[in-house]
Amino acid sequence: MKQQTGPAKVRPISGFPEWLPSERIVEQHFLDVIRETFELHGYASIRTRAVEPIERLTSLGEDTDKEIYAVSRLAGGSDDSREPKLGLHFDLTVPFARYVLENSGKLTFPFRRYQIQPVWRGERPQEGRYREFLQCDIDIVDVGELAPHYEAELPLVIADAFSKLPIGPFRIQVNNRKIPEGFYLGIGLTDVTSVLRIVDKLDKIGPANVSELLQAAGATPEQAQKCLALAEISAPDESFVERVNALGVEHETLTEGLAELAAVIRVGAEQAPGLMVADLKVARGLDYYTGTVYETQLIGHESYGSICSGGRYDALASDGRTTYPGVGISIGLSRLLAKIMPSLSASRSTPSCVLVSLADETDRPQGMTVAAALRRRGIPCEVAPVAAKFGKQIKFAERRGIPFVWFPASADQNNDSVKDIRSGDQTVADASSWAPPAADLRPRVVT
Amino acid sequence: MKQQTGPAKVRPISGFPEWLPSERIVEQHFLDVIRETFELHGYASIRTRAVEPIERLTSLGEDTDKEIYAVSRLAGGSDDSREPKLGLHFDLTVPFARYVLENSGKLTFPFRRYQIQPVWRGERPQEGRYREFLQCDIDIVDVGELAPHYEAELPLVIADAFSKLPIGPFRIQVNNRKIPEGFYLGIGLTDVTSVLRIVDKLDKIGPANVSELLQAAGATPEQAQKCLALAEISAPDESFVERVNALGVEHETLTEGLAELAAVIRVGAEQAPGLMVADLKVARGLDYYTGTVYETQLIGHESYGSICSGGRYDALASDGRTTYPGVGISIGLSRLLAKIMPSLSASRSTPSCVLVSLADETDRPQGMTVAAALRRRGIPCEVAPVAAKFGKQIKFAERRGIPFVWFPASADQNNDSVKDIRSGDQTVADASSWAPPAADLRPRVVT
Repeated sequence: MKQQTGPAKVRPISGFPEWLPSERIVEQHFLDVIRETFELHGYASIRTRAVEPIERLTSLGEDTDKEIYAVSRLAGGSDDSREPKLGLHFDLTVPFARYVLENSGKLTFPFRRYQIQPVWRGERPQEGRYREFLQCDIDIVDVGELAPHYEAELPLVIADAFSKLPIGPFRIQVNNRKIPEGFYLGIGLTDVTSVLRIVDKLDKIGPANVSELLQAAGATPEQAQKCLALAEISAPDESFVERVNALGVEHETLTEGLAELAAVIRVGAEQAPGLMVADLKVARGLDYYTGTVYETQLIGHESYGSICSGGRYDALASDGRTTYPGVGISIGLSRLLAKIMPSLSASRSTPSCVLVSLADETDRPQGMTVAAALRRRGIPCEVAPVAAKFGKQIKFAERRGIPFVWFPASADQNNDSVKDIRSGDQTVADASSWAPPAADLRPRVVT
Repeated sequence: MKQQTGPAKVRPISGFPEWLPSERIVEQHFLDVIRETFELHGYASIRTRAVEPIERLTSLGEDTDKEIYAVSRLAGGSDDSREPKLGLHFDLTVPFARYVLENSGKLTFPFRRYQIQPVWRGERPQEGRYREFLQCDIDIVDVGELAPHYEAELPLVIADAFSKLPIGPFRIQVNNRKIPEGFYLGIGLTDVTSVLRIVDKLDKIGPANVSELLQAAGATPEQAQKCLALAEISAPDESFVERVNALGVEHETLTEGLAELAAVIRVGAEQAPGLMVADLKVARGLDYYTGTVYETQLIGHESYGSICSGGRYDALASDGRTTYPGVGISIGLSRLLAKIMPSLSASRSTPSCVLVSLADETDRPQGMTVAAALRRRGIPCEVAPVAAKFGKQIKFAERRGIPFVWFPASADQNNDSVKDIRSGDQTVADASSWAPPAADLRPRVVT
């Protein structure tokens, strides 16, 4: 048999983070709460392939922020020529739009779906920016038209999920692209996309630099000033409408955007007071958004940027005959966890709640029977790796944070017993009826 | 704003299957049961990056069955030259071995881990063989030496998981590579790897062709005959030892392998009677296995091949100084589901148990309040997409299989009420106390 050792050098790859088992317990807790919340709100799960035709990925506009990873068979192969060139998806919205087109005849609309998968972007790795990261998306699509009330629903689902997670205070910022679009057109700036891209840098480079860039792109100082005045408007209620109107700009698209955003903010204030704000500087990088857009800040970590973003897209999913407008929002879970993982830990690094000890290796079958009885009643456990003195077994459990050690009956002892190694309490126990306190059954996330 | 429509052509990519929402519910049920079982047995979750250095992936021997997908930035980029060339992992064992080496100082050994992720192989797609597929792995590694009792533990965990899933009868076939290795050496065939590869084709091409291939590779007719006689031995108990000994071949490695396999089969017969068999033709394609190997057949679908495989690897994870021997087994979930999905369905295609109806669009805030109250008590629900007559709302629920429609109190009606649309029973209900029957709370898998 070939003995393989592999190359000796092993090291992390920049931008491709991995968690230790105890950190993974924290991540899994987040995933469980997010999934549970998405399902409580009626979102159905789908999982799409990791690859899309490169042609589809690159058709979504020049966005230098997203860099596509191409995928090709190392060995080449003659049967490849008729197949499309493939790339790893850089988000879950583009694959979802394609999935909707591909399966439109088999879905019922409006279709609510959630999707939790890794995505890949060949960006330069930096704080909170990875090349592989987990996203947790919800979207609603409908056929032909999409009712505006869904634009208020999505951030409420996110608010519900985040309220159950130990992430501290957060703020969902909502804008509507029609507002800056109409506003810019209203003051005579017609290259809306370029202006949006420049204003989007406001948090990073500050108002003076934004003004300079806008003027370099052809705006007058007055136009640049107006763009900044709009971007600075933020409010937890509909008062933003008055403040925009006070800037004295008129345009049909602006009026439409203000009404749409006011409706979203009104529902937010009713159903989740204090969690949503209208923030008119939010633009989002991706080109496919056409109306409402979302970002989310951790309060106290505003400079970290958004940890949950999305928006409405009216034309992303279209086969030329039918269009499926949608609205979606995506939790950047890896990005969120990178920020808050240092403040969290797991109560233990293994699911095992009980270590079944062995006084002698010949007792292993009996130990396995005890373990099977505990598992049948939902108690995670493992049998000791090797027969050893009790003290050694307790140390083994301690090192992993396993709270209970089980001692099967033996020649010296008529009954099974179980010891809580934290308190030292030891009691007679029966594997067919004993249960740990509910709080000890699974590893907990500790803040 | 740029309006994007994307390329019009949308079609599946061969070898990259996707499920519809109702099928995904079945898949998710399998994933939940598998994860729950792995955790009950004390396995900790990890998730590794999708990519490994190609150098590491290809160092594992010439295996034409696995084809590696290379990954590279479409845009190229100057900062890439110092980075390793990357490929998508083709299994979860190689990344796990690397993870153990990378984090050895932070793990406690023996280390039990599970890992549920997609893997990629550029094989020619065929029935049950995909280019992207989900694997569910458990492995145990230790430092320096790995106790043999773990080789009996792993198939018991799988047997426990499969016993809770609607997959019909199955058979875990166990062999030990030392048996054919010692046997072949004992009859004078020294190119063990080649002989193993030929005998591994037995189920596919039959004994006559195997004999021919063996002779083409230099075996005498008698040697070929002996190889086939060994491969034909299969038993649910230790009786296989006697049958091997009756072939009259002697070799130290053979004796060792027989003792190790007998120990595994003995524990299997005790702890999970009828689920494990010694099957001496099982070889496994991957080069890194060094002892016990596993495959799993669905009884009645033997020709479909293995849906859960693995083995012991003594030298896969080694940094030159320390070796971490391990044993692992992997459920080929996509492969398993491809076979049995046609016999399964979900009781509904959405998580929603309740549709909260709206008599008028102005009632939406009230409907949202009802839905929030139900969700707080764990009842998945959604508010009607649009206000409509009751009949239309019931049809909407019916189309998705949502069992209950909620009617909030209105001008005509003092109390909220809920209708089971299957029976037609309608009762007065309070969103802060009503609960559906437990069986209706979540979509169920129906056989």
